[in-house]
Amino acid sequence: MATVQIGMSTLLQVLEVAGVVAFASSGLIEARNKKMDAVGVFTVAFITAFGGGTLRDLLLDRRPLFWVQHQEYIILIFAMALLAIPLLKHLRFSVAESLIVYVDALGLGLFSVTGTSLALDSGMPVVVCVMMGVITGIFGGVLRDIICNEIPLVFRRGQLYATCSFVGCWVFLALDHVQSTQALALAGGILMVFVMRVIAIRFNLKLPS
Amino acid sequence: MATVQIGMSTLLQVLEVAGVVAFASSGLIEARNKKMDAVGVFTVAFITAFGGGTLRDLLLDRRPLFWVQHQEYIILIFAMALLAIPLLKHLRFSVAESLIVYVDALGLGLFSVTGTSLALDSGMPVVVCVMMGVITGIFGGVLRDIICNEIPLVFRRGQLYATCSFVGCWVFLALDHVQSTQALALAGGILMVFVMRVIAIRFNLKLPS
Amino acid sequence: MATVQIGMSTLLQVLEVAGVVAFASSGLIEARNKKMDAVGVFTVAFITAFGGGTLRDLLLDRRPLFWVQHQEYIILIFAMALLAIPLLKHLRFSVAESLIVYVDALGLGLFSVTGTSLALDSGMPVVVCVMMGVITGIFGGVLRDIICNEIPLVFRRGQLYATCSFVGCWVFLALDHVQSTQALALAGGILMVFVMRVIAIRFNLKLPS
Repeated sequence: MATVQIGMSTLLQVLEVAGVVAFASSGLIEARNKKMDAVGVFTVAFITAFGGGTLRDLLLDRRPLFWVQHQEYIILIFAMALLAIPLLKHLRFSVAESLIVYVDALGLGLFSVTGTSLALDSGMPVVVCVMMGVITGIFGGVLRDIICNEIPLVFRRGQLYATCSFVGCWVFLALDHVQSTQALALAGGILMVFVMRVIAIRFNLKLPS
Repeated sequence: MATVQIGMSTLLQVLEVAGVVAFASSGLIEARNKKMDAVGVFTVAFITAFGGGTLRDLLLDRRPLFWVQHQEYIILIFAMALLAIPLLKHLRFSVAESLIVYVDALGLGLFSVTGTSLALDSGMPVVVCVMMGVITGIFGGVLRDIICNEIPLVFRRGQLYATCSFVGCWVFLALDHVQSTQALALAGGILMVFVMRVIAIRFNLKLPS
Repeated sequence: MATVQIGMSTLLQVLEVAGVVAFASSGLIEARNKKMDAVGVFTVAFITAFGGGTLRDLLLDRRPLFWVQHQEYIILIFAMALLAIPLLKHLRFSVAESLIVYVDALGLGLFSVTGTSLALDSGMPVVVCVMMGVITGIFGGVLRDIICNEIPLVFRRGQLYATCSFVGCWVFLALDHVQSTQALALAGGILMVFVMRVIAIRFNLKLPS
């Protein structure tokens, strides 16, 4: 059991780094499309990666903030911003972009479900826990689009995105409620978001409009 | 006296629901105009209704947030967002919109004056209390317009809006200062906002520009 | 030594008023360009002047907020907003604007370095202190541009701006670390930002893009 937990914890950390990199990358790309300089590229990447979690922590009054405890993420995104400008000139995107979509789906799952879990630990009622999860998952992207002067993609995009986060948060709460281990509930919720998002992309599933 | 207080408290609750519905409706309508899907419609409606109060509570460091204590409002707006999409297709707006303007004026009064009252209870100086009242009243709409990628209507609109909130907050503080009952001060402030707003609409009153 | 400290403290206060006025002025001007009314002009000026510091305080969970402790600044900006509308009609800008650029550089230095200093007092790690300094210096302008529906100037502008803030914050931390007096470290950091910004404007220095 201890081995499983260590495995789970290492896996979560790997997913976390992957999720942060994926979210930051979408910020990098959008900032570059808007012809921003290195300052803008860093800021937009940072806010895309940590904006959702920071907003959640402000709403729940949790401190220290995630990125205050993990300075290394600030340095990572700083390095990404410096490297992105020369790299993005020469890279062909087709491969990178389709990879980003899947890593982003993992990040969405991880951020949403851990956001719900933190809200639950803070004693929030369930509906609020789900909202906090969805906010953690999607508000980085919302803030990215607001800074880039666009209507947020997640409110326009046909292919299910916030809906996957929403469903995954409920799956986590349901698993947690029926007394499965915390690790299993987390894994179930994250997997639900990921699978649902991948299906939505493959089959072009959209909300009715 | 007790009867008056119960009557006042019930009246305030009815006004609160009406104000939330009015503010959320303006969010629903603007989100639909921007062709958002159900996720966007819900989020914009929610932020329009609770954005001002949430910003005030972040600034004053008050917890729990209003909508965390009242899960039922989240569910109400969720239902409104789901129903809005089919309804808004078939509805003729002329009647609904002119109704919304008046209910919105009530919501503006209620949110502004209670915002000022909460700031006063937190020991803020009077100028800050008025600012908190105006923020509570207008920032939901400001955030709605930022998300919808518009310059906030309240900063552009000719017909007095924030000014009504501003005056009403001072009226509340003046009544509260002269030792009238809390209920009377609240009612006076809310009425001031409402009446001033209705007059501004009827006679097309604007700030000099 | 006491005389030096009093002199320093008075100087800092004068710089603070100058910085607030400079930042608020840039808000006034942009709001007027967008044809906002007095409400918009006041709000945008206020957010430009205090948005960065307020965001820093929300992130660090510091209360009371700067402008809550200094009501006189609210009244100052209120007066500026009322006067700006008739004044901005008749004023020729050439002189005023070039003055504002230099006062703004001072404000940027002051806000950045004091922001870093406050974060250091809150026990933040150094990378976070620098980020808090830069946020304090530039986020007022970022929020101004978001409300005015523009991509933030500081992310687009060729001439070094955030970079000056960034370098000055590190200079302050370095001086503070080598045990120079707090006053000297502050002065060194602020001077660094100011001089670097002036050089950037004069010689049109930009980040490589």
